[in-house]
Amino acid sequence: MAVFAKQLVRKTSARRQLIDLTPEVTGFVHETHVREGVCIVSVPHATAALIVNEHEEGLLHDMLARIESLFPESARYEHNAIDDNADAHVAAAFLGHNRIFPISDGQVIRGTWQNLFLVELDGPRSRREIVVQVMGDL
Amino acid sequence: MAVFAKQLVRKTSARRQLIDLTPEVTGFVHETHVREGVCIVSVPHATAALIVNEHEEGLLHDMLARIESLFPESARYEHNAIDDNADAHVAAAFLGHNRIFPISDGQVIRGTWQNLFLVELDGPRSRREIVVQVMGDL
Amino acid sequence: MAVFAKQLVRKTSARRQLIDLTPEVTGFVHETHVREGVCIVSVPHATAALIVNEHEEGLLHDMLARIESLFPESARYEHNAIDDNADAHVAAAFLGHNRIFPISDGQVIRGTWQNLFLVELDGPRSRREIVVQVMGDL
Repeated sequence: MAVFAKQLVRKTSARRQLIDLTPEVTGFVHETHVREGVCIVSVPHATAALIVNEHEEGLLHDMLARIESLFPESARYEHNAIDDNADAHVAAAFLGHNRIFPISDGQVIRGTWQNLFLVELDGPRSRREIVVQVMGDL
Repeated sequence: MAVFAKQLVRKTSARRQLIDLTPEVTGFVHETHVREGVCIVSVPHATAALIVNEHEEGLLHDMLARIESLFPESARYEHNAIDDNADAHVAAAFLGHNRIFPISDGQVIRGTWQNLFLVELDGPRSRREIVVQVMGDL
Repeated sequence: MAVFAKQLVRKTSARRQLIDLTPEVTGFVHETHVREGVCIVSVPHATAALIVNEHEEGLLHDMLARIESLFPESARYEHNAIDDNADAHVAAAFLGHNRIFPISDGQVIRGTWQNLFLVELDGPRSRREIVVQVMGDL
């Protein structure tokens, strides 16, 4: 069994934003030639997250709107006594910083409507990192 | 280290529904004879998810009620201009499409009240797939 | 590739509480000498969870307050006909019982503000278990 890793880097342009990472992630899996295993994606940030869903513009808007509804920027947060991004921290903690896809027969097993998105929660940022790991048998 | 995979298939019968997958998942782990490793479960769908908790009928009702409370079907969603299941997509993205259990000494390490459920969010559907992967040492 | 596992045990002292596990988890990764792989952390409990975020006291308060806001203890739950902790079960199911970190060059890849916390949702408890697994190449 082998382990491969790649770092992706993204610039973000809004406070909250969804950025599709699917082509690079599936492309990297193919480059590794792993046939049976897993692809683990992770963000080393406390105000960003990862989610998996359909890349449809209306839906991207709906997901960001639901984030605001569940983790309102203007709610009262104690962390905002020393910073101004508590909502981003809390949303990131709840959404989670990693997602996993199985790899079978050399393909990432995902549904037709399952794209992987970086969730920017406290942008814009000049540099967001995403770590893609592939573990498995060649 | 070895990798094993199995696909489970389920029919669902309601718009929102929790379907217990625990016996098949733990049964498959035993069949693999992996003694130390992990069991990764994933759904390749954008309107279904996985969660882990107690199989008690009242609680299953409570979990579905909380999904409606946090991701109301009747809220205004832009995605519903082209479809009618935005709430299912958003809930699936937030709940997540994968869960992992450690395997130690040939056993799935889970609590007494930790069953694994497929979360149907946009049923009924004739076919929902669940991918179970087991990676580890025999 | 090798698999290592360690069980951590914690006593909790409040109904809801966040307990930082970062030093033990990163310390165990170093002890394994795994250089490329993953660290998978899991709790075998249905009323506890894991989250990753900054260890700042105001923010810890904010995260617990948001749990109460999204999963109120006093809401009406059917499970409470037979028990009194439905909110804890539902929150645990939604937050999730596992988190993963990549390991690269012998280091846990995490952001400066990414600490790992046990989320106690139905304490105090005399014993909460956390399973830390490290899989990868030495």
